[in-house]
Amino acid sequence: MSQSRIDVLTLGNAIVDVLAHTDEAFLARKKVHKGAMQLIDEARAEELFGDMGPATVVSGGSAANTAAGAASLGVKAGFIGKVKNDETGHYFARDLKAAGIHYDVAFAQDGPATARSFILVTPDGERTMNTYLGACQNLTPEDIRAETIQASSYVYLEGYLWDPPAAKEAFRKAVGIAHEAGNRVALTLSDAFCVDRYRDEFLGLMRDGSLDILFANIHELQSLYGTSDPDSALAALRDEKVLGVITRSAEGALVVSRGETRAVPAFPVDKVVDTTGAGDLFAAGFLAGLARDLDLVDCARLGGLAAAEIIGHLGARPQANLLDLARQEGLLQ
Amino acid sequence: MSQSRIDVLTLGNAIVDVLAHTDEAFLARKKVHKGAMQLIDEARAEELFGDMGPATVVSGGSAANTAAGAASLGVKAGFIGKVKNDETGHYFARDLKAAGIHYDVAFAQDGPATARSFILVTPDGERTMNTYLGACQNLTPEDIRAETIQASSYVYLEGYLWDPPAAKEAFRKAVGIAHEAGNRVALTLSDAFCVDRYRDEFLGLMRDGSLDILFANIHELQSLYGTSDPDSALAALRDEKVLGVITRSAEGALVVSRGETRAVPAFPVDKVVDTTGAGDLFAAGFLAGLARDLDLVDCARLGGLAAAEIIGHLGARPQANLLDLARQEGLLQ
Repeated sequence: MSQSRIDVLTLGNAIVDVLAHTDEAFLARKKVHKGAMQLIDEARAEELFGDMGPATVVSGGSAANTAAGAASLGVKAGFIGKVKNDETGHYFARDLKAAGIHYDVAFAQDGPATARSFILVTPDGERTMNTYLGACQNLTPEDIRAETIQASSYVYLEGYLWDPPAAKEAFRKAVGIAHEAGNRVALTLSDAFCVDRYRDEFLGLMRDGSLDILFANIHELQSLYGTSDPDSALAALRDEKVLGVITRSAEGALVVSRGETRAVPAFPVDKVVDTTGAGDLFAAGFLAGLARDLDLVDCARLGGLAAAEIIGHLGARPQANLLDLARQEGLLQ
Repeated sequence: MSQSRIDVLTLGNAIVDVLAHTDEAFLARKKVHKGAMQLIDEARAEELFGDMGPATVVSGGSAANTAAGAASLGVKAGFIGKVKNDETGHYFARDLKAAGIHYDVAFAQDGPATARSFILVTPDGERTMNTYLGACQNLTPEDIRAETIQASSYVYLEGYLWDPPAAKEAFRKAVGIAHEAGNRVALTLSDAFCVDRYRDEFLGLMRDGSLDILFANIHELQSLYGTSDPDSALAALRDEKVLGVITRSAEGALVVSRGETRAVPAFPVDKVVDTTGAGDLFAAGFLAGLARDLDLVDCARLGGLAAAEIIGHLGARPQANLLDLARQEGLLQ
């Protein structure tokens, strides 16, 4: 049977989130960099899990969150990422299926456990992520099925995939197949420190034609161009041959296309509970908008709506039906 | 070393909650009784988990939620309940420790897995619970350490403990030790269907002097006295020799003491997200108030405040510091 059509296929680290509310003093004591994603080893994972507060467990992973957001907006979504054949891995895979997301990657039968990210949420709603990559390190080019990529109109990749060494080959394979099939490829820069680790490679991907769309927040974009000035970073982006989608938290988003920049205000949020997944869900809304052939400003509005839902509760997967919310706002029919 | 003093010790089924948003149609399709707690076997658990939506996992269990609420209000809390030596059991025990709750029950080394409750939350915020008791069935009198009970000013037991056959002996042992030590014993009726299963035994406990305090919502109280009329149920309660604490959702609580009934309004709630744990947290606030020697009306106010926090988010463990909230309201210093 041939693969049925997928609107938005995302590739990334398959991670289960363990979230706890905490305070600034705990972050200082544990010497973690607030707001960033740090990679940790198993010993550090055990230590943090032992010391952090009562936790909520929910499936996460940046690109998987984006797939869940797209599915909630009513477009057909798929995900590629690696978990182990353990309790946590089955929980992650079940959540994908429960959200109606296509997922055809085999479970790792040995090696490290399914990845977990210990996420500390401070009273301001900011999240600090400590990620044990585990089984994500076993994602290889063999996990990329050509027919899945060929069937996917938009293939979205997370910059975090540069961390597990074998995954970037899987990433490159997906880009090649997608472009051969005439599909579009997007990258999110993921995290300013991640950009710091792989700046030249990300610039290379953008300039060698691997990417059609770049998602980033303004800090990541500044990190990409090595500048403390947001305006110079935006000016540099205008010279690249990609559609740039830049988020700026409460200041809304900028859509940079063919040398032109359009600003779209943020969607109002009653109370910031937890920003985990805000960027992932913005990308979900934007890509769902593209898949529905909305104009770019409406794509950014849809992204803002999806991000606003996720900020209002703990965890990075939607708890409301985003399609219903989008219809109430007149953004989708 | 002698056991240090515990203000509120709770005994109950040790359960990890698996929560998902759902709709009325799903409840109808799965033939579950909305708002109630149903016991399910392993096969049914697998079926529900396979079919329900994307899930959030968080430690639960009625009495354990009450202990977590009391701890969050700044009183010393303890918990007795049985988990297995599996991934889920360790997660449950870690959450108790993370909340500062005393817990000295040994892990079950064999037998069924740690209990899970599959909780379906409808758009009106109502929760419907499907509980696989698993390792809870291994709670026995040997798990009751005399010095823990002796050290506890208030010993709180859940009616659900009547479901696993061996647990009621543990319950009776705890009551005996508590009263011998001059401590107070409370029972929550847990659920109207649970009362239906064990009506005579619960009435017996109240009338043979086993109980000092009875917690119930108005439906459970009506079930206890087998009447569809709330006023007759309240009249019957006034004749019992216990302090009665009756919750009535948005209509607030009634404190029935020595033939006298005092009404306390509910604490305002912005938005009902998920009522899971509302009764458990009301009891937590009330017991914390008793432990702090507040008058009964202020105990009920503290209960209402704790319940209101839990209703505002998914899951039955506090996400805010309840002591801070109580101080803001002038209920605690």
